This record gives sequence, C-alpha cells and structure tokens, in this order.
Amino acid sequence: MAAFRASCLMHRVEAGPLRRFTSQIFAAAGTPADIADTVAEFLVRANLCGVDSHGVIRIPEYIEEIDAGHVKPSERPRIAKQTATTGMIDGRWGFGQPSGVMAMELAVKKARKHGVGTVLAVRTNHIGRVADYTELAVRHNMIGIAMTNCGPAVAPWQGMDKLLGTNPMSFGIPAGKEDPIIADFATSASSEGKIRVMRTKGMALPPGWVLDRDGGPSTDPAVLYEGGVLQTFGIRGYMLNLVVETLGGALTGEGVSDEFKGVNGIFMQAINVKHFTSLRSFTASIDKMVKKMRSSRPAKGFTEVLVPGDPERRTMRERELNGIEINDAIWDSIMQVAKRFGVKPQTTGA
Amino acid sequence: MAAFRASCLMHRVEAGPLRRFTSQIFAAAGTPADIADTVAEFLVRANLCGVDSHGVIRIPEYIEEIDAGHVKPSERPRIAKQTATTGMIDGRWGFGQPSGVMAMELAVKKARKHGVGTVLAVRTNHIGRVADYTELAVRHNMIGIAMTNCGPAVAPWQGMDKLLGTNPMSFGIPAGKEDPIIADFATSASSEGKIRVMRTKGMALPPGWVLDRDGGPSTDPAVLYEGGVLQTFGIRGYMLNLVVETLGGALTGEGVSDEFKGVNGIFMQAINVKHFTSLRSFTASIDKMVKKMRSSRPAKGFTEVLVPGDPERRTMRERELNGIEINDAIWDSIMQVAKRFGVKPQTTGA
Repeated sequence: MAAFRASCLMHRVEAGPLRRFTSQIFAAAGTPADIADTVAEFLVRANLCGVDSHGVIRIPEYIEEIDAGHVKPSERPRIAKQTATTGMIDGRWGFGQPSGVMAMELAVKKARKHGVGTVLAVRTNHIGRVADYTELAVRHNMIGIAMTNCGPAVAPWQGMDKLLGTNPMSFGIPAGKEDPIIADFATSASSEGKIRVMRTKGMALPPGWVLDRDGGPSTDPAVLYEGGVLQTFGIRGYMLNLVVETLGGALTGEGVSDEFKGVNGIFMQAINVKHFTSLRSFTASIDKMVKKMRSSRPAKGFTEVLVPGDPERRTMRERELNGIEINDAIWDSIMQVAKRFGVKPQTTGA
Repeated sequence: MAAFRASCLMHRVEAGPLRRFTSQIFAAAGTPADIADTVAEFLVRANLCGVDSHGVIRIPEYIEEIDAGHVKPSERPRIAKQTATTGMIDGRWGFGQPSGVMAMELAVKKARKHGVGTVLAVRTNHIGRVADYTELAVRHNMIGIAMTNCGPAVAPWQGMDKLLGTNPMSFGIPAGKEDPIIADFATSASSEGKIRVMRTKGMALPPGWVLDRDGGPSTDPAVLYEGGVLQTFGIRGYMLNLVVETLGGALTGEGVSDEFKGVNGIFMQAINVKHFTSLRSFTASIDKMVKKMRSSRPAKGFTEVLVPGDPERRTMRERELNGIEINDAIWDSIMQVAKRFGVKPQTTGA
C-alpha cells in the first residue's frame, strides 16, 4: 500500500511518512535535523488532532518566513535568564516550537523542586498549538498552563478596531487511569482559518464572530476579508484576551495591542501536583471528575458529554488508522516547496 | 441629613454607616471586632461595585450559617503549611474573607522574593467577590489571580446534570497612571442571583443561560427553580470551569464535582512584575493598552469601549456619592437580624 494515495480532490497521507517528508523539506531549507524533526512532529500532530490550520498547511508559510529572514532556521533558543523558580527563553528568531518546548521543560524542572515554575519566551516564531506544551507538562504529572500573545486581528468588546491578538490559552490536567484534560482555545470567538474554511463552504457564521467594516454584526464570512474584524468570545473572551496580552506582551516586554513586536509572546507555567497534595488522591479526583462528566445525561439535541481533549483524541485515533486528508490545493503548495528543495514524498511501497 | 433615608420601596444608605452597622451585627453574633470589620468592608464594597448579590443581602444568610454551626465566627485562619514559594491556608471554618486575605497576602509575600507565589485555602466559608483579592495583589504592583470552586449548580457542556460550581475567576493587572484592569467573572453563563432578579422583573434570559428540567434550552428564568440547571458560558466556560474544579477542588483536596466538600476551595497566585521586567516599562505598556481600548471606535450599537473594572469603578463613584439603594424586602430581613442582636442602624443626625 502506498503511503501517499491520491484521490480527485484529496490526498490521504499516513502520519509517519508525512512527518519524514516535512522534516526533510525543513532540513533542506537549512534547518538542523533535530529541529526539523521537532517542527515536523508538531505540525503533523496538529493534523492528527484535527487542527488542520496548525498542520502541514504551514509548510509553505514557514519556508516563506525563512526566505524573508524572519525565521532563522539554524538558530537555537537559549535561556536568557533564570532564577530558582522562573526563567526567560530567548528564541533568537529560530523556529518557535523548540522555544516552546524549552520553556515548558524549564518550567517543569523548576516546578519539580519548588512547586510552581514560570517561564516566558521572547523572539520566537510561531509555536503552533499551545496544547502541545501543556501536554508536555501533563506527561510529568504536572498541571500545564500555556498562552501566547499574537499580532492584532481582534476587536475589543464593544469596539471595532484590530487591537488584540487571537491570543490562545491551554490548560493541561493529568489524570490517573482516564485521559488527561487538555483544554485549548483562542480568546477570539474563532480563528481566521476556521472562517476561511466556512467561507469556502458557503456557510453562515454564528452571531458574535465577526464585525463588518462599519462595525456592524454579520454572519457572512466574506466581511472579514472586506475590512471586517474578528470578535472576542463575548465579554469574558475580552477579559482573558487582555490577560494574555499582559502575560505574553507586557510581562515579556514584547509590547501590547497593535504595538506588539513579537510573533508569539509566551507565558508558560507548570504546577507540580505532588508539591501540594498526594498525586494518587489528585489523579483519583480527576478520574472521578472525567467519569462524572462523561456519564452525565446529555442535554436535548446532544448524545454525549465529553471532556476537553476528547475530540482531538478521537480524531487522532481515526487519522492514525486511516491517514490524514489534505486537499489538493494545499497539497500542491506543499509539493511546489518540496520540488524546489528536491525532496520527494516517500512511499512505503507495494 | 439622615444616613439612612427610607423611601417607599428602597432604602438609600451611605457606605460608612452601613459598614459600621454590618460590623456591629457580626460582632454581636460573636465575631471578633477586626474580623467583623473585614467582613463588613467586603460586603459593602460589593454593594458599592454594583455586585449586590455579594453585598449586605448576605447578612441574614451569614447569621444563619453561624446559627447552624457552619460559620465559626471567632475562628481565625492559620497557615497549615508553606514552602518558600507556596502555601496552604486552613480557614478553620471561620468567616471566608479573612482566609482569602491571608491567602493572597501570603502569595504576595512569597512572590516578592521568588517572583511567583501560589497559595491554596481550604475549610473556608464564602469569600465573596474574588476580585477583592486580585485587587489586593495589584496594590503591591503584582498581577493577581484568584479562583474558587463552589458547590454544584451548573451542567457540563452538552450535559444537563448539576455537576459543577459557578466557579469564578479573577485577574488583576496593575497599571501606572491608568486604572488597573480587574477582570472578574463566573465560568457559568450567569449567577443564580442575576437570574432571580430577572425573574422578578419579568425579563427573558439570553439563550445559553439555563436548561429546563428535561435538558431543553429555555429563556424563561422560572425554569431554573423548577428542576432546571445553569449552563457554562459556552464550551470555553466549561473548559475554564474544569480548571477551577481542578485547582480549587482536586489540588486542595476538597473534592471535585458533586463530591466537593468545601464551601469555597481556593487557588490564589501573585506574579511579581518587577521579578520579570522593569515595573516602569510594564505599567507604561498597560497604560498604553488601557488607553488604546478606551479610544477604540465603538462597534454599531455601542457608544464606548471599556476595560475590565471600569463598570464597577463607575458604580462605586456614583454610590459613594449618592449612597447604596437596598430594596425593602432585603432591608427588612437585615433589620430583623439586627433587632435580634439589639443593633440599631446609626444615623449621622440632622
């Protein structure tokens, strides 16, 4: 069976070969093999989770960033300063993912000894899904918190100017026998990518996602591309968005609102469960909570109650089995980049 | 001018005399004067901010809790355990407010030396508005985070069983010349108190606030009192709600979901700005952000853009000037309690 099967509008690709193919492209573009592997792993993992906006669709964009000198592929992050409990990573404008990993790993290390570790990162490029980093803390039986400031694309509550990032946050909570709770969400009502997809499909948006160029409410995805703006998810989304601006922009010194100078301004924290209580009783508590949620009676119109992380895990199981579907336009744009670097998608033969 | 002026359906009361009156009631019920003052200060402050559900309306309830032995008025919180960066407060089932104050003050103290201080509190009664504690951190030029688990009243996302608390969170962010950002919100779509008020006024609820006894959506406030249930504020409210269950219930050991044994299970954190960056550049950044939000063009249907904390500050200025309105039914219930303890509302004469 070929690892890459072409269909009329879709390519279905197995995760393993896609990961190697992606890594080879970045390596050919001047990225050390270990960093290329990390970036490839994170992109393909996003596809596996169903978050295609953060998946291999980014390959051409990342290569453009290298061409433009914004991503310095051979640079490695460094610890710029640290204390017993805190740290600051300098991403040196290399790929963002190694900075994110270094930040959370340092936070975990500090939390192991002192209960809570808090690490910021600056001068990083795109770090991808923030959930990838809280999952990293969870693997150490710690609660992980990750958030990142982004460039302005979102209006404040009751406002219409692009003054805030989509500013996502993630919380990871370790369980015992059950799956961990992995929450990951933008503080905007939607990402731009989702709206782009809904536009392509001719779908109407739910109210509260976008304003048109005159600051009026709209359910038409097209208005976003005609001078419109993304909205926060209600007033609470606005509040949380400002928290991310603060922790990822003001505390890091990268700047806030439309004066934010970074790509991602990062705040990460690891909370060591064992420091506060017995790990056994904590994970028993979380297991109980997960079970209670899943066995709750569904509201009308629903068939089940899930916990955060369940939808991604389901998609991952399905895609690990059946491969990842990539549409023709995206696949072509990736193949163009690959061709330029003389990299060919690998087939496993037969 | 009398400090307490009666009208047909409303009493208008000045904050100072109301504070003293409230303190005297709690003192007469066996509360040491300093604790009685703290509780009175927090309740009246809630009224001043416009959060009447957390104001003097609670006096009869707190007295009932004393009668029932749930609030032990003379007990003082203690530090049950601590390290250089973390702590655990035992509220000893005294009034909740002193536990909350002790927790945030301890977090601030730890953060002063180590950058971040994290303190939990257990066996506390109702601590009131969580914003009161993040404001405390802000007064020390620190970012304050406070959240508390509560008894079950809210359904999980897509579910209909009462398995989660209203679980509020607050974030306080110090500014320079501008007002601080004080965000405070429940992770449920609404508090029960707000729905009760809307029911009295014959108002319809926005969609997404409550489910009826059969798990169906409803905009009728009455359904909540006929076997219905509160909802989270969307799927993100559900995610954040589980974070509060975890930090306030599992990490504290007080239990999660409908097995939560506390009244408020508390997580507080202080982040010392100076530890990470220069205080001057941080507050300049926050000032800039606050100004940018407030000067943003309003969306259609709105006249201004605010920052979190503005509405409460406005109400406070108005009520400090004109007094706090308390409706007759609530005032009568407070006067009954006062009478029982032989406490009379003080008039400032003339």
